[in-house]
Amino acid sequence: MPRMALPFGDDVAAVDIGRGKLAVLKSDMLVDRTDAPKEMTPWQIGRKAVVVAVSDFASKGVRPIALLTSVGMPRELPKESIEQLARGLEAGAREYGVCIVGGDTDEATDIVIDCVGFGLAQKGKIIPRAGAKPSDILAVTGLFGDTAAGLRVILERTRVPNGLRRRLVRSVLMPEAQLKMGLALARTGVVTSSIDSSDGLAWSLSELSRMSRVGFAVENLPVSPLAERFARITNTDVKDLVLYGGEEFRLVVTVRADRWSKAKSAANRAGGTLYKIGETTFEKRMILKTPGSRASRIRPVGWEHFID
Amino acid sequence: MPRMALPFGDDVAAVDIGRGKLAVLKSDMLVDRTDAPKEMTPWQIGRKAVVVAVSDFASKGVRPIALLTSVGMPRELPKESIEQLARGLEAGAREYGVCIVGGDTDEATDIVIDCVGFGLAQKGKIIPRAGAKPSDILAVTGLFGDTAAGLRVILERTRVPNGLRRRLVRSVLMPEAQLKMGLALARTGVVTSSIDSSDGLAWSLSELSRMSRVGFAVENLPVSPLAERFARITNTDVKDLVLYGGEEFRLVVTVRADRWSKAKSAANRAGGTLYKIGETTFEKRMILKTPGSRASRIRPVGWEHFID
Repeated sequence: MPRMALPFGDDVAAVDIGRGKLAVLKSDMLVDRTDAPKEMTPWQIGRKAVVVAVSDFASKGVRPIALLTSVGMPRELPKESIEQLARGLEAGAREYGVCIVGGDTDEATDIVIDCVGFGLAQKGKIIPRAGAKPSDILAVTGLFGDTAAGLRVILERTRVPNGLRRRLVRSVLMPEAQLKMGLALARTGVVTSSIDSSDGLAWSLSELSRMSRVGFAVENLPVSPLAERFARITNTDVKDLVLYGGEEFRLVVTVRADRWSKAKSAANRAGGTLYKIGETTFEKRMILKTPGSRASRIRPVGWEHFID
Repeated sequence: MPRMALPFGDDVAAVDIGRGKLAVLKSDMLVDRTDAPKEMTPWQIGRKAVVVAVSDFASKGVRPIALLTSVGMPRELPKESIEQLARGLEAGAREYGVCIVGGDTDEATDIVIDCVGFGLAQKGKIIPRAGAKPSDILAVTGLFGDTAAGLRVILERTRVPNGLRRRLVRSVLMPEAQLKMGLALARTGVVTSSIDSSDGLAWSLSELSRMSRVGFAVENLPVSPLAERFARITNTDVKDLVLYGGEEFRLVVTVRADRWSKAKSAANRAGGTLYKIGETTFEKRMILKTPGSRASRIRPVGWEHFID
């Protein structure tokens, strides 16, 4: 691979196309059986396929300008479901200002959507997974735990009050990619590494750690209030919901400590919040050390393990 | 879709990226159950997924420079098959001088491969489906019928001598994209429209006809000698093998009549042959009129109908 600007395994692939430009490409495959709870409508499945791909672009600070959507479907899928699915793809594309320019359809046993994004970036302006340095600030662009709780409500039929249930389930059915935030953070030039949290916070941290060859000390868990309430009601450890959930499309970033306020205000101007949760360490371990409790290791596992 | 250089439904999508350049994108989904006879090994399935995508680039005269390969697989697929499949993808990529720069994997019931190609083209240098003019010469880059005969041998267990059987089956298991030919033809500047014949010659003609708003008079059927022999032995109409087969990755093109020799010699220099099979007509019908037989309509059906 001669002209790769990012290593294999980063959130996107980037191909040098000359004149200081990179073509940025990413494909994400979604299979209904594995990636979509039965509660999801075809419209929501289509929309989610787009969100997943856009989130990878968000994490690199690159605007996707075109999508290809390849769809495999069972022959017996009702025409109405097919139309719903297509409308979901389009709705997702519109939400993030990107055009579906092509795709393919085929017959398959499952509903399979491969959503491919294409964008352009300036060389050197794309945020890699591999750029974190010791003493950088570790931050996230949202609070965690809603989708892990939502998946328990859906898959394990955990009982919680209706209002809470609705909001948790919605976080699973209607995920959101933080594209505006990712673009704003990239423009600051002070974000040293970034990844999206689609496979869970712990997994994202372990990927940043592995590719940047640093460790992390997490001092503040970014706990969502809904997840906290769910944990209290169901007697669940909220730490597990926050660290080992998934399908929660936040950005996990490291920021130069001396430029933290620049990143923080860029996030605010983009309508969001950057939450400081810890810092990058020279030692390549991932440690959770919250006030008043013992230090513990963060395990490098992702949400696939959570549902197994 | 504001910046599309080719209409939706052409072989590839082309996005204007400024400075006279187009980003060319194409995804092709292959599902083993539908697109790969049982005789195909995982290596051959992987390789074929690449061939199918490359063939679309060939038909537009654009060199693919990067591929993304997303693969869905059953959980119980043996590790060896997975490795074979990956090696097949790589072998296909190497054959056509293109790099696999990314992809995704997921669990699915079938083996599903979505192969996405990316390339660059100069604006105005990409051969569309919609450019054929009346009186253009209609030509193909190879002879037809082998894969239709091969599929009958495989799917219907039609019995033919061993040597013939081997070669027909091979045409199905080891398809080839005519990339070198497509690039050479595009460079001549005298090819007015082009499509690949993955869905059969008749279907390709009907697509060129529909998008260029012309008709075709076919005077010479491009019959492969192997298909001819198969037809004789099995008492099959060779015309059906040639017109209504599929999975045969030739290029179907129209050429300015006054510049035919330029296209013909470019094809020769690329190591192949351009076969004149007829001409473009003002009247939007597709007619087969071979010497010594009655004129008949070419039906706009593709190979999906053939296997149904």
